[in-house]
Amino acid sequence: MRLMEEKILREGEVLPGDILKVGSFLNQNIDTEFLGQMAEEIARLFADKGVTKILTIEASGIAIAAAAGMSMGVPVLFAKKHRTSNVDGSVYSSVVHSFTHNEDYNVVVSRDYLNADDRVLLVDDFLASGNALRGLIDLCNQAGATLVGVAVAVEKCFSGAGDVFRAQGIQVESLAAIESMSEDEIVFRA
Amino acid sequence: MRLMEEKILREGEVLPGDILKVGSFLNQNIDTEFLGQMAEEIARLFADKGVTKILTIEASGIAIAAAAGMSMGVPVLFAKKHRTSNVDGSVYSSVVHSFTHNEDYNVVVSRDYLNADDRVLLVDDFLASGNALRGLIDLCNQAGATLVGVAVAVEKCFSGAGDVFRAQGIQVESLAAIESMSEDEIVFRA
Repeated sequence: MRLMEEKILREGEVLPGDILKVGSFLNQNIDTEFLGQMAEEIARLFADKGVTKILTIEASGIAIAAAAGMSMGVPVLFAKKHRTSNVDGSVYSSVVHSFTHNEDYNVVVSRDYLNADDRVLLVDDFLASGNALRGLIDLCNQAGATLVGVAVAVEKCFSGAGDVFRAQGIQVESLAAIESMSEDEIVFRA
Repeated sequence: MRLMEEKILREGEVLPGDILKVGSFLNQNIDTEFLGQMAEEIARLFADKGVTKILTIEASGIAIAAAAGMSMGVPVLFAKKHRTSNVDGSVYSSVVHSFTHNEDYNVVVSRDYLNADDRVLLVDDFLASGNALRGLIDLCNQAGATLVGVAVAVEKCFSGAGDVFRAQGIQVESLAAIESMSEDEIVFRA
């Protein structure tokens, strides 16, 4: 998505530790006009795939997932990172390792909201290690749901996880795919 | 908002501890058509108030805030509940007590994204103790921003916090305002 690449080049900032800071428009301060454009692009990429539900993970995936759900006319389910007192005991749960915080956490969804009839599109802001998405795929498998594909705003291709998913036959679409990045240069996949 | 009251009566569930479970459509599994209707209603309630930015708090406020921001054509900023490695050290921060988890946490936004020119609408899914909103108001005050008002999906009027804000001259709009609730009955403010 050319617009996303331009936005990253104009507003993104590469920080030490392979961090791409896009808080100015994507995952802290959200440019809502641009959010609508991202959502339309995701809807286009997965049109006619029979998606019945979008699954994401709190917190920074929620905005793009909600917008995509509105564009596609399907509900959006978000996995929580730990149990809260108002989620039933009856849940699907998977353990995810966060490199950012160097800790494990549980991703959890209620069994009420994900089931074997669902055709699920996973949506998130970033695809880097792929650990969060692997947790969401595990939740889908536990529910017996069908995984239709993965849509992310930004893929760090150099992490390799996106291509591992593709090699498994999963349709992975990233609105911007970064082959390499440094403080001086960001190179997108052709 | 009549639609919201009907939705709560049809799909909501009152659990012990004054918990209203609305995960089936509002804050875990999101009914995106209804989300769009909520957003339009918030946009209507705060039309012509010169809102330049919506501020919410992760995680369950993000979907309704993002949708409202799309309807109003303004950016959406969400406060994080603790520092992450890709937020600048230069932040506004306020301490909030969570009754749900019985612990204190910090709400944090980057100084880059909130400033004295902003006219801010606070949006969240629930207004109960008002603690989270008090934290967001503190962030606005630190930034010198103007607080335009507060929009929430569901207000638990019996907590009293919404009326305290109103007595301070703040425009507080709730799409459903619950005067009292039990397993048998939910009574809305007339």
